[in-house]
Amino acid sequence: MPRLNLGNINSHVVEAKYAVRGELAVKSEAYRAALRKGDAGLPFSEVISANIGNPQQLDQKPITFFRQVLSILEHPQLLENEQVLLDSLGYKPDVLERAKFLLKNIGSVGAYSASAGVPAIKESIAKFLEKRDGFPADPARIYLSAGASSGVNTLLHVICAGPTSGILVPIPQYPLYTASLSVLNATCVPYYLDEAAQWGTSVETIKEAYNTAKNNGTDVRAIVIINPGNPTGASLPESDIRAVLQFAAKENLVVLADEVYQTNVFIGKFHSFRQVLLTLQKENPGVYDGVELASLHSISKGMVGECGHRGGYFDLIGFNTDVEEQIYKFVSIMLCAPVIGQCLVELMVNPPQPGDPSHPLYEQEYNGIFEGLKKRATALYEAFKEMEGVECGEPQGSMYLFPTIHVPAKAAEAARAEGRTPDEFYCMRLLEATGVCVVPGSGFGQKEGTLHFRTTFLAPGTEWVSSIKKFHKEFMDTYR
Amino acid sequence: MPRLNLGNINSHVVEAKYAVRGELAVKSEAYRAALRKGDAGLPFSEVISANIGNPQQLDQKPITFFRQVLSILEHPQLLENEQVLLDSLGYKPDVLERAKFLLKNIGSVGAYSASAGVPAIKESIAKFLEKRDGFPADPARIYLSAGASSGVNTLLHVICAGPTSGILVPIPQYPLYTASLSVLNATCVPYYLDEAAQWGTSVETIKEAYNTAKNNGTDVRAIVIINPGNPTGASLPESDIRAVLQFAAKENLVVLADEVYQTNVFIGKFHSFRQVLLTLQKENPGVYDGVELASLHSISKGMVGECGHRGGYFDLIGFNTDVEEQIYKFVSIMLCAPVIGQCLVELMVNPPQPGDPSHPLYEQEYNGIFEGLKKRATALYEAFKEMEGVECGEPQGSMYLFPTIHVPAKAAEAARAEGRTPDEFYCMRLLEATGVCVVPGSGFGQKEGTLHFRTTFLAPGTEWVSSIKKFHKEFMDTYR
Ligand SMILES: Cc1ncc(COP(=O)(O)O)c(C=O)c1O
Ligand SMILES: Cc1ncc(COP(=O)(O)O)c(C=O)c1O
Repeated sequence: MPRLNLGNINSHVVEAKYAVRGELAVKSEAYRAALRKGDAGLPFSEVISANIGNPQQLDQKPITFFRQVLSILEHPQLLENEQVLLDSLGYKPDVLERAKFLLKNIGSVGAYSASAGVPAIKESIAKFLEKRDGFPADPARIYLSAGASSGVNTLLHVICAGPTSGILVPIPQYPLYTASLSVLNATCVPYYLDEAAQWGTSVETIKEAYNTAKNNGTDVRAIVIINPGNPTGASLPESDIRAVLQFAAKENLVVLADEVYQTNVFIGKFHSFRQVLLTLQKENPGVYDGVELASLHSISKGMVGECGHRGGYFDLIGFNTDVEEQIYKFVSIMLCAPVIGQCLVELMVNPPQPGDPSHPLYEQEYNGIFEGLKKRATALYEAFKEMEGVECGEPQGSMYLFPTIHVPAKAAEAARAEGRTPDEFYCMRLLEATGVCVVPGSGFGQKEGTLHFRTTFLAPGTEWVSSIKKFHKEFMDTYR
Repeated sequence: MPRLNLGNINSHVVEAKYAVRGELAVKSEAYRAALRKGDAGLPFSEVISANIGNPQQLDQKPITFFRQVLSILEHPQLLENEQVLLDSLGYKPDVLERAKFLLKNIGSVGAYSASAGVPAIKESIAKFLEKRDGFPADPARIYLSAGASSGVNTLLHVICAGPTSGILVPIPQYPLYTASLSVLNATCVPYYLDEAAQWGTSVETIKEAYNTAKNNGTDVRAIVIINPGNPTGASLPESDIRAVLQFAAKENLVVLADEVYQTNVFIGKFHSFRQVLLTLQKENPGVYDGVELASLHSISKGMVGECGHRGGYFDLIGFNTDVEEQIYKFVSIMLCAPVIGQCLVELMVNPPQPGDPSHPLYEQEYNGIFEGLKKRATALYEAFKEMEGVECGEPQGSMYLFPTIHVPAKAAEAARAEGRTPDEFYCMRLLEATGVCVVPGSGFGQKEGTLHFRTTFLAPGTEWVSSIKKFHKEFMDTYR
């Protein structure tokens, strides 16, 4: 008997679920490896990883300005040959300037930075927040992180004090939240999003979830909002945000705003929790002053799409200094966020401006990516409309569609026989038949009796969409 | 009253201690900022961060080959101008080849990789382990991590099941271990290293610590060894390693070998736990087969010194498949280690070989750094020998010296009056007088009644060493 086994290791880790990289993803990677080795026995010639918002794994190209700057940061000796960079390699003067600015403030990207991040980068973020929201920001309240994942990990670690600590989490949700709460042995207090209202946030529903948990003895401390939504794609109207903040102020709840998709918005406009909170504070002196808000952002999504670099930050409003000291200590145990990822955060929040030599190309690339995503989202949405028993709202934002599926009773039976939920069963068959990997709705949570799957709309081309349609028809015919 | 305060947040986070980036480090950063702003009121003109093993913050230059490859990975369009790279920028053909190899296997460094790391990079690590140890390695048992810190975090999270789970930790130790165990609410079972035997590992002492803990109801599951040592600098002889493995086999303990300083060895030779374990297994069929060993490595230290890139890996021997699946799931929640950091791991384990175009410069840089560190270590050691009441062993390895200090009774009294331990008091006065930031021994743990401080020997020049000597004399004179 090995010393460590499923029965004696950390049961909270064992209990955690993270479907985005679960069985289906593992199987899809095995298919990919088999195809690479020339396996001809599969009914498809390509694996499409639509299970994860990983833009550059699919079609999305990095922004040239960003990567030119990074190439210099990695090899500063390039600056000994400025003319070569400018004349022969297409670097513009603002690329060199930015690289010099960052190197001056960082020293080497190979050195640990301050634990909360490079001070000059925090200043750039503060300027960005001020410009975005119309209210000044304090660089000292900003913490760089290894992707938003690590920011969420930090915040939940500090906030959750044990099994009775409860956190309101939207359902469906990105499973980082439920998984982290499992590991922490804290209580997830689920509140359902309203599919009938474009997956919006209903304060009535939140209130109910909150009261039920409270009555069960849970000390509900915080509420998570993902806006734009993952997996839902919802982009919240300002009124929803106001209502959530009102509720948080009344019930003294910390607000965790996951805003990693803030630039992936197709319908309406992104409203940050920070901007709405500071507006409410101004409009209602005294009422909102006590609200504690942590807002998270990332370089992984949007037109940046640099997930592999693991960069992100969170900024705090209203947190106690004592608590911030604990946050600082916690992040310092892991020393610092990847410095190159920090630099990408700087580039993301401070991109070339009109008039800068790199601006035309930047704008062209940025808009090209945005339009491409919108077009693909629409194409996928149109395909879903034509599929029997599939219902899907219009794409609003983020990188996902989350259609409802209705499967025949026989399919549900076949699923049960395999020990799977019907949506897992559907996604497994889809993967086996087409090489397209999506995630069953159960991986994010869904209302009892409903079934969904989540797919990104990042993959280029229409072939994979056609193969989903073809599979779906055959699936329905088989189990009808 | 804010919702979150010291009294209601996660008490395990509050209890955690991490002195390496604690009060002294924060104060030293404030001094640095003041000097940058032209503050003339300080008795020194430079802050020396000898509190943390951060090579590139001080004098160490990155290895050119590594950074040239990274510059291409960040901006693959450079490969459209190979001739410019070769003729005008000093890139050698093997730089281009390696970049192409990595890009082919990774796609974009901006994409999430597989959660356990890029498969081709795991294969390079396996080859390195085979070459280093003389025993083949399985790439599937290798997990890339964001620095060794994140590897330690993963392993402790999975291994520790609650307050009664105990982990044997050397004292003095790098405080990542005690801090992580605090956060996890698991039990640290300290075993003292033997200062009189060059800070070696005494199995007698380990046995005692183990038995005491066991008798107190602690389920001791694992033993941590840091070799070469931090803060001690000790480089363990093979016999110590054999003895530890023998004990682990007998008591069924998981072994966590932190080998991030494996190339920082000045006296003798580095012996990996993996090599010794596999040798023991061969020599004694059956006896050592059950030992579970996790070995950790990092790009942060050695002649690589790329801490800001947050790269590392751990490899497992003897772990149960079920447990490895939990490790996989745990790391997948954070998605993946920084991909550029993973590439640096590949470069570290697979550097230019004799005959390769980049080899001469690589070798020159590598040896230059090694000799420089050795020279500085020796100079500092010589200085300590001349200081009253300071005792320090010969530098053996890693990046630190950890001298014992004897302070006059009056100094101990003055410390008590400030609410500090005498070593904290000493280090604080040193920082205030000289701008040199070191870490008191209490930050790592030390035997009752002894006092130490840890200093890196990374800073170039001899001026800072002289300023320590001068301070020490004055300190002794003041409190004598
Ligand atoms: C809502 C949401 N938050 C956070 C993350 C984490 O992203 P990262 O850690 O790459 O910044 C993701 C990734 O998909 C996400 O969808
Ligand atoms: C013994 C030891 N282990 C692990 C680490 C963590 O290093 P990193 O996370 O940068 O790889 C350090 C850093 O100083 C260390 O000294």
